[in-house]
Amino acid sequence: MKQAIGTPAGPRIEPRTWRERLRRFLDQKWFVNLVLVVILANALVLGAETLVTGPAYDVLVTIDHAMLGFFVVELLLRIVAHGRRFFRDPWNLFDLVVVGVAVLPASESLSALRALRVLRVLRVITVVPSLRRVVDGLLRAVPGMGAVGALLVLVIYVSAVIATGLFGEASDEYFGNLGTSLFTLFQAMTGEAWPDIARAVMEVHPWAWIFFVLYILVVGFAVLNLFIAVIVNGMEEMSEEERKDDEQKDERLDNLAAQNHEILAELRSLRARLDEDGTA
Amino acid sequence: MKQAIGTPAGPRIEPRTWRERLRRFLDQKWFVNLVLVVILANALVLGAETLVTGPAYDVLVTIDHAMLGFFVVELLLRIVAHGRRFFRDPWNLFDLVVVGVAVLPASESLSALRALRVLRVLRVITVVPSLRRVVDGLLRAVPGMGAVGALLVLVIYVSAVIATGLFGEASDEYFGNLGTSLFTLFQAMTGEAWPDIARAVMEVHPWAWIFFVLYILVVGFAVLNLFIAVIVNGMEEMSEEERKDDEQKDERLDNLAAQNHEILAELRSLRARLDEDGTA
Amino acid sequence: MKQAIGTPAGPRIEPRTWRERLRRFLDQKWFVNLVLVVILANALVLGAETLVTGPAYDVLVTIDHAMLGFFVVELLLRIVAHGRRFFRDPWNLFDLVVVGVAVLPASESLSALRALRVLRVLRVITVVPSLRRVVDGLLRAVPGMGAVGALLVLVIYVSAVIATGLFGEASDEYFGNLGTSLFTLFQAMTGEAWPDIARAVMEVHPWAWIFFVLYILVVGFAVLNLFIAVIVNGMEEMSEEERKDDEQKDERLDNLAAQNHEILAELRSLRARLDEDGTA
Amino acid sequence: MKQAIGTPAGPRIEPRTWRERLRRFLDQKWFVNLVLVVILANALVLGAETLVTGPAYDVLVTIDHAMLGFFVVELLLRIVAHGRRFFRDPWNLFDLVVVGVAVLPASESLSALRALRVLRVLRVITVVPSLRRVVDGLLRAVPGMGAVGALLVLVIYVSAVIATGLFGEASDEYFGNLGTSLFTLFQAMTGEAWPDIARAVMEVHPWAWIFFVLYILVVGFAVLNLFIAVIVNGMEEMSEEERKDDEQKDERLDNLAAQNHEILAELRSLRARLDEDGTA
Repeated sequence: MKQAIGTPAGPRIEPRTWRERLRRFLDQKWFVNLVLVVILANALVLGAETLVTGPAYDVLVTIDHAMLGFFVVELLLRIVAHGRRFFRDPWNLFDLVVVGVAVLPASESLSALRALRVLRVLRVITVVPSLRRVVDGLLRAVPGMGAVGALLVLVIYVSAVIATGLFGEASDEYFGNLGTSLFTLFQAMTGEAWPDIARAVMEVHPWAWIFFVLYILVVGFAVLNLFIAVIVNGMEEMSEEERKDDEQKDERLDNLAAQNHEILAELRSLRARLDEDGTA
Repeated sequence: MKQAIGTPAGPRIEPRTWRERLRRFLDQKWFVNLVLVVILANALVLGAETLVTGPAYDVLVTIDHAMLGFFVVELLLRIVAHGRRFFRDPWNLFDLVVVGVAVLPASESLSALRALRVLRVLRVITVVPSLRRVVDGLLRAVPGMGAVGALLVLVIYVSAVIATGLFGEASDEYFGNLGTSLFTLFQAMTGEAWPDIARAVMEVHPWAWIFFVLYILVVGFAVLNLFIAVIVNGMEEMSEEERKDDEQKDERLDNLAAQNHEILAELRSLRARLDEDGTA
Repeated sequence: MKQAIGTPAGPRIEPRTWRERLRRFLDQKWFVNLVLVVILANALVLGAETLVTGPAYDVLVTIDHAMLGFFVVELLLRIVAHGRRFFRDPWNLFDLVVVGVAVLPASESLSALRALRVLRVLRVITVVPSLRRVVDGLLRAVPGMGAVGALLVLVIYVSAVIATGLFGEASDEYFGNLGTSLFTLFQAMTGEAWPDIARAVMEVHPWAWIFFVLYILVVGFAVLNLFIAVIVNGMEEMSEEERKDDEQKDERLDNLAAQNHEILAELRSLRARLDEDGTA
Repeated sequence: MKQAIGTPAGPRIEPRTWRERLRRFLDQKWFVNLVLVVILANALVLGAETLVTGPAYDVLVTIDHAMLGFFVVELLLRIVAHGRRFFRDPWNLFDLVVVGVAVLPASESLSALRALRVLRVLRVITVVPSLRRVVDGLLRAVPGMGAVGALLVLVIYVSAVIATGLFGEASDEYFGNLGTSLFTLFQAMTGEAWPDIARAVMEVHPWAWIFFVLYILVVGFAVLNLFIAVIVNGMEEMSEEERKDDEQKDERLDNLAAQNHEILAELRSLRARLDEDGTA
């Protein structure tokens, strides 16, 4: 009890440094909501930019630049407020990259990078906790898919090398070189239009159906197992709770066993007592 | 026993107000079945209307109008019988909208609204309890999909803005403007014909496969997790029962522990008794 | 023991009637295997018939007729052996229909019925127990899908009537009449080539995407839930075992509680005894 | 304790024969990693071979031959080291076949076999334990799919014979002979472009939709159950653990029951004792 005396009551702690004060400012509910609103408005502005031309477009670009400025200032404030620890949270790095992409191309020649400015909108995920949790959950499922995924990549690569060798001349469009074959087999993995490809090849090599049927069966089965790995993962989280429940039950059973031990000990001492009385 | 004397036996309670009598009338089994038969017959009539022309069509329209009249009267009776409470059940509002759509367009110019008359057939769901339960179940699964669904919408929107910027000029048909891009990417999400789109774009931008492969993987993974959210939901209902079972088991273990406590107390008092005897 | 005296030892029971003898003959392992071999050989013969012409074809037809004769005799023997009870097993009726289809068309004009002769090969399912069990399992899953299935049929029918009304003139090929619309929407339910249909319609009605996107989402969600109904079904069989396990555990806990009661009673009587001794 | 005296400490056991020494050499971590690196490098070389021509190609072929030589020597060493037992592990046989395929065609005329050389890369699975475990897991799921798989093959075969008979003349491309029909129906099973086929046939036989809708529903349902068989399999492994947990719990309950028995016996003997005392 005495240890608590000197310390102030929890909620009334006064931030002592300006950094702490800044951190509090940035974490205030209204400020977080403001950031969220600016992000969503920015999404609409970037979408509208693709629809209009002329002066309206220029207005939108100006608004967009202002919003980008807001994000840059906000991130700088966060970096100042948190110091080095800012760079330890992967979500912060995500924010940095996504805003950085928009700032980088001072020369507007890189149209590809300009198109990626909208990635900035993905900051919604950083700001809304429930979205962040979902993405964290999705990412947690990835390692469980690792081995099956590696197997799948291996099967696709080996099949692509085989297909390039066998069908490269027959169907230049689909199996002309290793890159084309890889794309074609990725497409076949998603089940899209594989019979068109197979029929095109089978006109030259009638036995090509063996390759395609085998590939579809093997890859389909592997993808199915990738799915199952994710499902089982989802289930396991659910049954994790059950396990905790089970552990509690184990504890209860242990308690019962301990009690019984005590009862037996009690009885035996009683008996010894009676024996004593008897002999006394 | 004495408390029951004054009250009449359950099933013979006489409805005291005319409203109560009306409610009973509307809930009678034969009347509910009549409504169901009229709905199904209406479905056939509306289907037949699309198949015939000439005088047969006019006959069908007359029958359809009669059936619509029946529904309007039935709903009015329900509103009278239940009063304000009628509007609290969302299923009743569904009935109102669905029948209302058919009554509204006195001017037959709105052909779109005319085509929607058949929505009236969906009242089958309101009338058949097992269908209603299924729909309730489906709707209950929706909130669990909320966050993943929002993420999916976000990814599709951001991808559409990027694709419009990058591929808009190369493939006007698929990525000409934001609306077209959104539709194309929704289509790609269902896995339909995405390689056709990708190959069309790749003729101009050979590196476009990066965008498509990434998009297919990310969206496919998100959709998979949407599925899993629904499956886990279905499972949880099942394991809810198990949990109840488990709680009962917990109770039994608690009872056992309580009994053991009693046994120990009994033993200790016995011992004390013997000690007394011994010293006595 | 005495009851067993008059009866002969199990395996040596002599069939007393010729019917019983016939039944035993038909159930003998070698005869069942013979039937299985003839069915599989018949499958090959019927497949080969589609590949050859000329005299070879005539030979195959003769062999096929002989095999059909074998099946007819076998089924007649079964009917004689089992009498009325034969018609109570749905699998026997399946056999009858499937063999009957091949016998019926004495006039060979009905080429459709001739093509269905191969259905006879499905008798493999009747003969091989593990296949029969799988089919029984699949059929058991059907009722659980009932309500969702009915809902799906309802949604497809209503959508088909709406689509015929809205898009009938714009796309005669896909939505020309109710039948065509039903087929098109069944196709869209399997996710096949729906964007082609949607784009064809959208050329005339640009807002048609609303119908298609809604339809794909609603039907996709319903089909997903159909899947889940089947999966949950499969799971439930699995957890049925667990439930039995749980019941055994309940029994054990009951036993423990009963024992504890006995212990308490024993202790109380002990105490009473000591009290007696004390007062004695 | 005394038993341990004569034997040397575990890790320092000296291999007594040269075979044992060879086995140790082959199982050393650096050597296993070397094999893995050579396999992966070989995969790149075989991929690069499809991309280049001229002298670069010849260099790659030489490197490839060197790597193949390495694999042959490595496998021979393994055979020498393990003797007959080498041939008992199916993974070793897999290695033999996969390397053997590359050695066999001294005459380079068999271009098909040459294309299969890349199968050698699949040795990665043999070398990396986690991949091997995944493949073992996938193969373990196969028997559970046996009966449903056989049913599926049966349905496809019967449907192919029927379709060849009914639609052979109408659509030579899809149902011209049994082989074509089997491929077409395999394609329809994967859900790919089945409406194109159906519409092509329906131009001649308008009622053909019955066949296709039935086929899609039956095969779709069977494939779904194949999936479920695999999922349930995956789940069972998970719940296997739970079962073990449950068995431990059963044991604990048994122990509790045994203790209670002991307590009762103790109490009864106590009582007998007191009775004795009383009568004494």
